[in-house]
Amino acid sequence: MHDDPTLADIQAAAERIAPYIHRTPVATCASIDDIAGVSLSFKCENLQKVGAFKARGATNAVFSLDDEAAARGVCTHSSGNHAAALARAAGLRGIPAYIVMPSSAPPVKKAAVAGYGAQITECEPTLEARESTLAGVQKRTGAKFIHPYDDPRVIAGQGTVALELLEQAPDLEVVMPPVGGGGLASGTTITVSSLRPEIEVWGAEPAQADDAYRSLRDGKLYPSVKPTTIADGLLTSLSDRTFRILSTGLAGILTVDEATIIRAMRLLWERAKILSAAVPLAAVLANRDRFEGRRVGLILSGGNTNLDNLPW
Amino acid sequence: MHDDPTLADIQAAAERIAPYIHRTPVATCASIDDIAGVSLSFKCENLQKVGAFKARGATNAVFSLDDEAAARGVCTHSSGNHAAALARAAGLRGIPAYIVMPSSAPPVKKAAVAGYGAQITECEPTLEARESTLAGVQKRTGAKFIHPYDDPRVIAGQGTVALELLEQAPDLEVVMPPVGGGGLASGTTITVSSLRPEIEVWGAEPAQADDAYRSLRDGKLYPSVKPTTIADGLLTSLSDRTFRILSTGLAGILTVDEATIIRAMRLLWERAKILSAAVPLAAVLANRDRFEGRRVGLILSGGNTNLDNLPW
Repeated sequence: MHDDPTLADIQAAAERIAPYIHRTPVATCASIDDIAGVSLSFKCENLQKVGAFKARGATNAVFSLDDEAAARGVCTHSSGNHAAALARAAGLRGIPAYIVMPSSAPPVKKAAVAGYGAQITECEPTLEARESTLAGVQKRTGAKFIHPYDDPRVIAGQGTVALELLEQAPDLEVVMPPVGGGGLASGTTITVSSLRPEIEVWGAEPAQADDAYRSLRDGKLYPSVKPTTIADGLLTSLSDRTFRILSTGLAGILTVDEATIIRAMRLLWERAKILSAAVPLAAVLANRDRFEGRRVGLILSGGNTNLDNLPW
Repeated sequence: MHDDPTLADIQAAAERIAPYIHRTPVATCASIDDIAGVSLSFKCENLQKVGAFKARGATNAVFSLDDEAAARGVCTHSSGNHAAALARAAGLRGIPAYIVMPSSAPPVKKAAVAGYGAQITECEPTLEARESTLAGVQKRTGAKFIHPYDDPRVIAGQGTVALELLEQAPDLEVVMPPVGGGGLASGTTITVSSLRPEIEVWGAEPAQADDAYRSLRDGKLYPSVKPTTIADGLLTSLSDRTFRILSTGLAGILTVDEATIIRAMRLLWERAKILSAAVPLAAVLANRDRFEGRRVGLILSGGNTNLDNLPW
């Protein structure tokens, strides 16, 4: 037995988080369509609160807690968008957030998390230090740990992206999220397979962080080993839960090399003026045979990019 | 007597060009509002066809021609967005476009214009060469010269930006376009002063290309002399027509230094994920006293930026 979210959970999440998040726009770009040979709809989660879809899952998790649990607060370890998203959601509910961040995290990210009113505990930049520091925080505070993706309420929140996309672009034949830890991809497959089972859901993953591709291919969960990709939101491994959901829900995972990721990102910025990561667009460019002439919805997961260190 | 456009002309333009242009979105960004102390609405003409508001004026001009004039085609000299916009509009109407471009124009810009089916004539990169080459093209073809801003049909087209903005953000107290040749600013002042005379229209101009500011201040038209700004869409001078319209329509022009323009552009990219030029945002940042606490609509005029040469 498992407690994986259902379409009903995702629909409830959509209602729960609606006051706190953006219904992000869907953009199109004729010039990229010409280049790719595909009709693309870009779901712009780069324009979401905190700059990424993570606002949805964290907000759903925080507002799903009963009052007694909520009063003790929430905690997580993260140096990325989930930390900001959880800190923001806790602030909106008026409860404490405790965020364990590696000492190596960029000052701008610490400032963002602190700006939402969270309490930051620094630790050494290793997974062991993050986990043991978080355990200490939990023991001290009783705060609820909200995992960035291995959590049914978080996955339900991420599934609201596809709920909106299917309304905004009702004639899609393919939907493609990127795959990191698998929370967004899991939520997407549950929504799409429940509402529109004829639509294929493909995952897009950097070839240099292809643990999900290999896991699904071999039917066993591999951890991500020393991944190195500029798509730094996609470094994490699947969990048992997201592996299980993606194993049945995805048509497959397409891996893309770094040069194509960079080309796609630049196309998106130059032609569509959309400042976002672009791994799914890279997967479309690299697999023209599969998608040519079809209507494809790409989920742009976030736009928090270091403008001082662009890859071109 | 003059034939400056009226609100009715702008409303007719909106109807005429609607099938061919985007109704661009209006974005907001809580984090920039916090920094600026203002409630900002960004009118995203960077997401317009050809990447700039110029698509509106050129399309209105081309579709305003009677069939006989249209059959001979249209022409202009430009290395920028107006060239692409005119080429595209002519292609949509199925008439010839003749574009005079300096030999120094970037290959990517020539390719864009050629891609819309226009005939390009290259010339030396001086204003004299551009004008004499254009005169030759006109004599040979009988094509109608569509000036990038000194043209009532072009100004009427640009005035449709504010028409949409006032509908999309009905509670504005200030509207601010950037000022280059003055076409967008002129159209904006006509729309706003006709529909909502209580709203102030301020122009924003780079201090290093401040011919419009000086012209309005002294009540006489100065040409732009050796302007050097990274906001390279704003290098041009006002014409007699745009000088006349702006002299009565604007509350004033605010000039901003290059460092503030760069800071504003970076804020817009990083915080709002909006890839656009940002001179009006710079003017708000530099004039906090004037705008603090007010609801301000900023017109983002375009996003065609050289990503290989960013100013940070």
